[in-house]
Amino acid sequence: MDHHQSLLARLAQPADSRIVLLVLDGVGDLRTAEQPKTALEVAQTPNLDALAGRSALGRITPVATGITPGSGPGHLALFGYDPSQPEADIGRGVLEALGLGLKIRPGDVAVRGNFATRDDAGNLTDRRAGRPSTEECRRICAQLQAALAAEAPAGIDVQVEPGEGHRFVLVLRGEGLSPELADTDPQKTGVPVLPLRPLRGGEDPAIQSTIARLEPALATLRRALTAEPRANELLLRGFSGLPALPQWQALYKVHGGAFAGYPLYRGVAAACGLEVVPCGKKFADLVAEATRRWQDFDYLFLHVKQTDQAGEDGDLDAKVAVLEEVDRGLPALLECLDPDRDVLAITGDHSTPVPMKAHSWHPVPLLVAGPRCYRDDTTAFTEEHATRGHLGTFPARELMGLLLANAGRLKKFGA
Amino acid sequence: MDHHQSLLARLAQPADSRIVLLVLDGVGDLRTAEQPKTALEVAQTPNLDALAGRSALGRITPVATGITPGSGPGHLALFGYDPSQPEADIGRGVLEALGLGLKIRPGDVAVRGNFATRDDAGNLTDRRAGRPSTEECRRICAQLQAALAAEAPAGIDVQVEPGEGHRFVLVLRGEGLSPELADTDPQKTGVPVLPLRPLRGGEDPAIQSTIARLEPALATLRRALTAEPRANELLLRGFSGLPALPQWQALYKVHGGAFAGYPLYRGVAAACGLEVVPCGKKFADLVAEATRRWQDFDYLFLHVKQTDQAGEDGDLDAKVAVLEEVDRGLPALLECLDPDRDVLAITGDHSTPVPMKAHSWHPVPLLVAGPRCYRDDTTAFTEEHATRGHLGTFPARELMGLLLANAGRLKKFGA
Repeated sequence: MDHHQSLLARLAQPADSRIVLLVLDGVGDLRTAEQPKTALEVAQTPNLDALAGRSALGRITPVATGITPGSGPGHLALFGYDPSQPEADIGRGVLEALGLGLKIRPGDVAVRGNFATRDDAGNLTDRRAGRPSTEECRRICAQLQAALAAEAPAGIDVQVEPGEGHRFVLVLRGEGLSPELADTDPQKTGVPVLPLRPLRGGEDPAIQSTIARLEPALATLRRALTAEPRANELLLRGFSGLPALPQWQALYKVHGGAFAGYPLYRGVAAACGLEVVPCGKKFADLVAEATRRWQDFDYLFLHVKQTDQAGEDGDLDAKVAVLEEVDRGLPALLECLDPDRDVLAITGDHSTPVPMKAHSWHPVPLLVAGPRCYRDDTTAFTEEHATRGHLGTFPARELMGLLLANAGRLKKFGA
Repeated sequence: MDHHQSLLARLAQPADSRIVLLVLDGVGDLRTAEQPKTALEVAQTPNLDALAGRSALGRITPVATGITPGSGPGHLALFGYDPSQPEADIGRGVLEALGLGLKIRPGDVAVRGNFATRDDAGNLTDRRAGRPSTEECRRICAQLQAALAAEAPAGIDVQVEPGEGHRFVLVLRGEGLSPELADTDPQKTGVPVLPLRPLRGGEDPAIQSTIARLEPALATLRRALTAEPRANELLLRGFSGLPALPQWQALYKVHGGAFAGYPLYRGVAAACGLEVVPCGKKFADLVAEATRRWQDFDYLFLHVKQTDQAGEDGDLDAKVAVLEEVDRGLPALLECLDPDRDVLAITGDHSTPVPMKAHSWHPVPLLVAGPRCYRDDTTAFTEEHATRGHLGTFPARELMGLLLANAGRLKKFGA
């Protein structure tokens, strides 16, 4: 826990108020010679603009000046963690597992898997097994789980959980397992799958013991795949354990709910101690589910992915369309909020400017609405208004404190 | 290496792009009751203003709020180092030596020297020996070097290098030398030169051994000066070794070139691993040399000193004249830049407000032009526009990351 976070933990107090964080993934955009207006400037967003008129605007710097975050670090910062600290380095296996809603305990090892195709010589011909349907994936995973139940590998409990398409997750449980194993995915075809081996070399007995126990289990899984025409091999990546992140309930004294349509964001939220609420991918789905579960949480995190996808595609029209869809859905969310008590923040985890077709380091617009906000002169939710707003520009990982404060959930510091 | 810099080092990647950092030393200025416009506001700078119109503006804080930096810390921050860390404390001897283009190795000790005049009683009468010409300085230094060659002091190799006027540099080389020696310059006349002695007291054998070896060499030098009518004494200051600064090539994966007319700035750049390119003192000289060596570097640092000098003199007209000279020379520099790839930053290492006649802590205007910049609403390179710009106000030592990012030279952080 860093200094800033431990200060928040000292001051956090319960209150009868709610915080809603609406993340429009990659919302920040650029004005360039070719694109003279940003997506937020092009979009017709009367509800957002009216809200901006009675809110405070500002900007957040995702990680640090010039640093372009991935989605994991971007969200960890929004959740109040310093993503550049080693303990915030969440492995991809555990992220995927948490995203699927699996309960991962300290000591468990989670691994991402791909079903793949190999030829008679043992060389990979398709690293995604011809992209099976999710339903097909579920069938194969059930078959694998049955094979493990029949043979029960010694000293290790292996759980196989289907993901989407060719993806699945293995959760390994047992005494003294180590996540320090290298990927078995060779990342190309024409070669065989790689053997289980230590990530960084060395003779750590826990690593050797993990390999010794996992190898027979993998052999069982492979035997259960021999009859499959395409998914006759499996590739493993991102062996990882549960990160030692301090949990929200203890840190901030809030019970958080995560409303996200995509596994990665669910995973990051779960790693911080939020409860993942399964819901659809569209903004209206998130709002409907959040409305339904309103009484269950102090803090509701809603994640809209499509702004980022449109930015990555370099598709200004698509990004504008998503923003206008959010704008249309906003009144339903605002109706739930108690204007005398609750706090709504709208921002992104990073910018994904259409002209760059990629995540970027540029500061992200932020809107905070609540009874204790300064009503500044801004009248639209755009980069330009946000630059001039009362909240100024500050590191994303300080947003958590600002929201707790606005919700009356931080005590005074010192006498 | 601090946390921020190690993050940059993890993410830095080579790219086919150039970064140009144009430092207008002390460019930031003040509006006061007596001086209602800053130098940047008074100056007629059509080229800078047009560039501001298609760039992002902001401000940098040199070291920290309220801290007035010297030129060394000011530039170290621009180069991405935290100047308040002990390893960034570059001794003046080594700075002077590097500025003269000398190769200083780890273990060497560099010292700044003044030629001085003493009377028959051994008391100093002029600490600058009547300010000899640089040519005269060269002659005397050659004479000293010849005397050392003839007598060859034991266990220490002493190199005498002329500077400007009464200044020279000694470079000491030998096994186990210590730079922990106090200045022999008493900083006043009417008293004798001070003896060699430890900087902080104590009985460190390396210090004692350095003194024991340097004393006979100094005696040789003094004997070689006895016939000089004015330069018959020498004063030593700033004993120092090479600082352990991480070098640019390893840190940022760029090959930097320093185009500066003055030794101190060359010295700081060399200490960070930039290659010093000898060139004249005027902006046109810097641009001419930078243009000639364009292909040799990924990063070109151009240093204009005269803005600071005019500020120190409290001469608004002179400061304005330098800014207008830079503005006239700007098109020649812009012509070299590839607008689809390269990045140009214009800023200062600190403010030197005319009304203060001194360095100050005030934030310094910053302009960044490049293909990934947000084209904000600013239309002139002034303090006022910079305050409203899209880049915001941030610590100078984060500028390096911002420029690397804009040049496509930083990988994404995390997945």
